[in-house]
Amino acid sequence: MARAKPTESDLIRDRRWLAAAARLAERARPLSRPNPAVGCVLVKDDRVIARGWTQTGGRPHAEQMALTVAGDAARGCTAYVTLEPCAHDSARGPCCAGSLAQAGVVRVVVGCPDPDPRTAGQGNAMLRAKGVDVVELACEASRLSLAGYLTRAAKNRPFVTLKLALSIDGCIAMASGESQWITGPDARAHTHLERSRHDAILIGAGTLRADAPRLDVRLPGLEPRSPERWVLTHGNAPDGWRALHDPADLSPLSPAQYLFVEGGAGTAAAFLAADAVDRLLVYRAPIVIGGGRTGVADIGVSSLAGAHGRWTLRDTRRLGEDTLEEYVRTA
Amino acid sequence: MARAKPTESDLIRDRRWLAAAARLAERARPLSRPNPAVGCVLVKDDRVIARGWTQTGGRPHAEQMALTVAGDAARGCTAYVTLEPCAHDSARGPCCAGSLAQAGVVRVVVGCPDPDPRTAGQGNAMLRAKGVDVVELACEASRLSLAGYLTRAAKNRPFVTLKLALSIDGCIAMASGESQWITGPDARAHTHLERSRHDAILIGAGTLRADAPRLDVRLPGLEPRSPERWVLTHGNAPDGWRALHDPADLSPLSPAQYLFVEGGAGTAAAFLAADAVDRLLVYRAPIVIGGGRTGVADIGVSSLAGAHGRWTLRDTRRLGEDTLEEYVRTA
Repeated sequence: MARAKPTESDLIRDRRWLAAAARLAERARPLSRPNPAVGCVLVKDDRVIARGWTQTGGRPHAEQMALTVAGDAARGCTAYVTLEPCAHDSARGPCCAGSLAQAGVVRVVVGCPDPDPRTAGQGNAMLRAKGVDVVELACEASRLSLAGYLTRAAKNRPFVTLKLALSIDGCIAMASGESQWITGPDARAHTHLERSRHDAILIGAGTLRADAPRLDVRLPGLEPRSPERWVLTHGNAPDGWRALHDPADLSPLSPAQYLFVEGGAGTAAAFLAADAVDRLLVYRAPIVIGGGRTGVADIGVSSLAGAHGRWTLRDTRRLGEDTLEEYVRTA
Repeated sequence: MARAKPTESDLIRDRRWLAAAARLAERARPLSRPNPAVGCVLVKDDRVIARGWTQTGGRPHAEQMALTVAGDAARGCTAYVTLEPCAHDSARGPCCAGSLAQAGVVRVVVGCPDPDPRTAGQGNAMLRAKGVDVVELACEASRLSLAGYLTRAAKNRPFVTLKLALSIDGCIAMASGESQWITGPDARAHTHLERSRHDAILIGAGTLRADAPRLDVRLPGLEPRSPERWVLTHGNAPDGWRALHDPADLSPLSPAQYLFVEGGAGTAAAFLAADAVDRLLVYRAPIVIGGGRTGVADIGVSSLAGAHGRWTLRDTRRLGEDTLEEYVRTA
């Protein structure tokens, strides 16, 4: 059967539903590891029939969850999936491409190809072979929601966010070392929310000795989401902590998909110098300290030309009196 | 004649016209000195009849300009004026309160009282005595547009803006001293626009020696707006420059209403330490320098509690790759 070419408004509608699926995928972050955090929406006549997201530990997959919820109503639906459906059956369940076709889904819109060699194009091919219309979109929202999985696949390391709480003039503390608090309660609560979105959290040995921070998530209902604690050190880690020796080798963190680096200045600089930061999260307080302790030590950049072009500001938002600046690496 | 109480929609309309008058006043900044930069709009049946703003050197006043443009059409108008009309005749012209009444203006909406003791309430009183309806609003836009005049009246010094061009981590230069450029062409052009809005511009003696900057306005048509150049020094100023010895005593700058401080770090710190900064203009580049030269030296703040509560973020905007952060002092 020949299919009509999609119109501009079809495309806008598809992108909107994919963005909704990407929002759902957020529920699986980082609990789905080692599997990707995927979101799926089944839609018929512009109505949501069912929703799914990867469950804790990676199974059921998002598509399986949505199909289970939909039951017979899946027939005739379009499935919006942030990642290409898997094509390999496993002991834990049938493959999603097969299940979608068998349930009568007539169209699948895919937000991002799967780099896993067991799927990589074969999910889409299987769907097409079974007569399902497959639309592949380069969907920014899908890609962002899969950042941890895609970074692990491409670089064999987690997606790394470096968090900095800075004054206007870039300080993390007074010259005396006083650092509590640079930012206000809204910004600090947001930091806890970010912690809950990460598998692992890391600080430097100096910060561990000086502050002995708990680094847990203190938000009602999210306490169990506290990430695994790591310390950057040449020595051993104390009880309840694990040791990372070198930011240039993050393999000990496997299979973590998301690492949250909380400082101090030497640790921030070590990760930046190793080119191991994907996202900068700057909580900026409206204060001037003047001659205080700066947030980032030497990172081995020797010219301004070398400093430019590495970061782009993706978003800013107000958090009480403070401002959150989110930068992402340009390449 | 008893007048009807203004409704909520009257108030919204009044505030909108006052904001338009404040925008007009911007044309007079800083050329109106030593007089305030005032804007005036004459309105009848929701239509603009005439506009005026303080002319170079301070005369004619905004109201006189608008009345001249309007001629007989001023009869029956409402006048929106950012500052209370003057009540004192001078050798250079009659007082504005008298002129407005004589021209048949029936209502005057005033955005800000005049602290000048020759007017201070007497302008409004004269209008009322002549049967004109006077509405006094506390108008933020009017107050902001008069910042230089009001600061001079209250503190006998200009309104001081400290400009900083900073990296994410608060540096103004590499550790080597390389500083051209932190920010991109859009941010630098915006700096020139800001220069044109100031009477006077100041840098430190170290920056003058190192960079010998021209500090002029390099925007087509605005070259004549280049501000008077000042250097912070204990010694003498070179040709074409004037010397300021102490940020705690800005009286040598009189009658300037707006001072633009462009650095370096020592000068920024000296002005902050003297509590002589009203507005921080931070051009933030999306770069991390790491261990570079910081933008603000010691300002004598010894605790975080002492650093908080002094600044509030009023506005941010994108300028190419960079971000402009505008902070104003809280009190």
